[in-house]
Amino acid sequence: MAHEVLAAVLQVRYATLQVLLWRRALDPHVGRWSLPGGRLRPDEDVETSIRRQLAEKVDVRQLSHVEQLAVFSAPDRVPGPRVVATAFLGLVPSDVDPEVPEDTRWHPVDDLPRTAFDHRDIVLRARDRLRSKLSYTNVGFALAPREFTISALRELYSAALGYKVDATNLQRVLSRRGLLSPTGHTAPPGRSGGRPAALFSFPGKGIQVTDPFAVFRPPPKRR
Amino acid sequence: MAHEVLAAVLQVRYATLQVLLWRRALDPHVGRWSLPGGRLRPDEDVETSIRRQLAEKVDVRQLSHVEQLAVFSAPDRVPGPRVVATAFLGLVPSDVDPEVPEDTRWHPVDDLPRTAFDHRDIVLRARDRLRSKLSYTNVGFALAPREFTISALRELYSAALGYKVDATNLQRVLSRRGLLSPTGHTAPPGRSGGRPAALFSFPGKGIQVTDPFAVFRPPPKRR
Repeated sequence: MAHEVLAAVLQVRYATLQVLLWRRALDPHVGRWSLPGGRLRPDEDVETSIRRQLAEKVDVRQLSHVEQLAVFSAPDRVPGPRVVATAFLGLVPSDVDPEVPEDTRWHPVDDLPRTAFDHRDIVLRARDRLRSKLSYTNVGFALAPREFTISALRELYSAALGYKVDATNLQRVLSRRGLLSPTGHTAPPGRSGGRPAALFSFPGKGIQVTDPFAVFRPPPKRR
Repeated sequence: MAHEVLAAVLQVRYATLQVLLWRRALDPHVGRWSLPGGRLRPDEDVETSIRRQLAEKVDVRQLSHVEQLAVFSAPDRVPGPRVVATAFLGLVPSDVDPEVPEDTRWHPVDDLPRTAFDHRDIVLRARDRLRSKLSYTNVGFALAPREFTISALRELYSAALGYKVDATNLQRVLSRRGLLSPTGHTAPPGRSGGRPAALFSFPGKGIQVTDPFAVFRPPPKRR
């Protein structure tokens, strides 16, 4: 039984959550769009393998976060001999524009072209995982550039979550979780002028559950 | 490349989080303790496979929750030909006592015997997943009996999380999340007498992220 690794690499581009797909030049499923990845080699584990294959095939070396999503193992998921897939979620910060081969394009996750095999299910699973994790982890760091204004961050969160997020509330929640560090810099004013906006950064890289178990600690004393 | 499925089945027993392990009668790793599971068959996906194998080998049919944990794929994780494993987390409610074969025992996750292969890593990953999920999902339902007192629930959460949870705070948090339904029944008083304690239940089965994205909605108006 063969084993492959696949990645749904997501990035917010043009205020839309997008996924990287390549177009199949050969059968099976010629012309359909598929996720980057390929066979697991004898000398590598699944994470080493997906990082190697992303680097080789689509020149995505600037992944800010990679995590296992799920195993896709329906016996008939691909034609021919059986292949079990370990699927990954990968994230790319919004200020990077990886060079990708001719056959490769970004597509909005909510408006996918015709995809190969079970790759659509994998993309939607990746999208849902990202959305869940935005609510209970610091994974937003992996979508954002190193420095950002609150207004830019609001656009990123809105695109990823699929609904308009309130900027004031976003700032309040992230600050309370200790996830926003003022950098002391300001962004140049936009076309419309106005006063320069403060720039922030995320204090750490590396995903963690924010506020873990705090809900089960005694509430803070009232003043 | 062969593929196997393994499950870390957890249950709170005697106020301690425990995992079900069986003792290997043959080499490799004879005498060590291992997770239930086995080879993936050609006609089944990984979830069907783990449920079949748990039912066949350890008579655990009363799983309240099963989820994929991760793929364990280090090339040398088992001696001999390569085997990639999909590991699962399984949960059993505290009021069930599954009949298990002679070679099978429950062991405290924080005091494991000598385990085979990478099974210790899998158990610890399962424990950590459960602990995280108790903080941001309703997964507590899968550890608890159908009806319970707050004091019994506090014991379950404390055992699973590995630290003493405050009963009043637990009730407050779970109620706020809409996760506690009073059943209208009371428990018979304990040995020490006292007034009968109210019984509660969890309103739904099936895991969900509680309070999803609520943090990014506008805050409720102050009165």
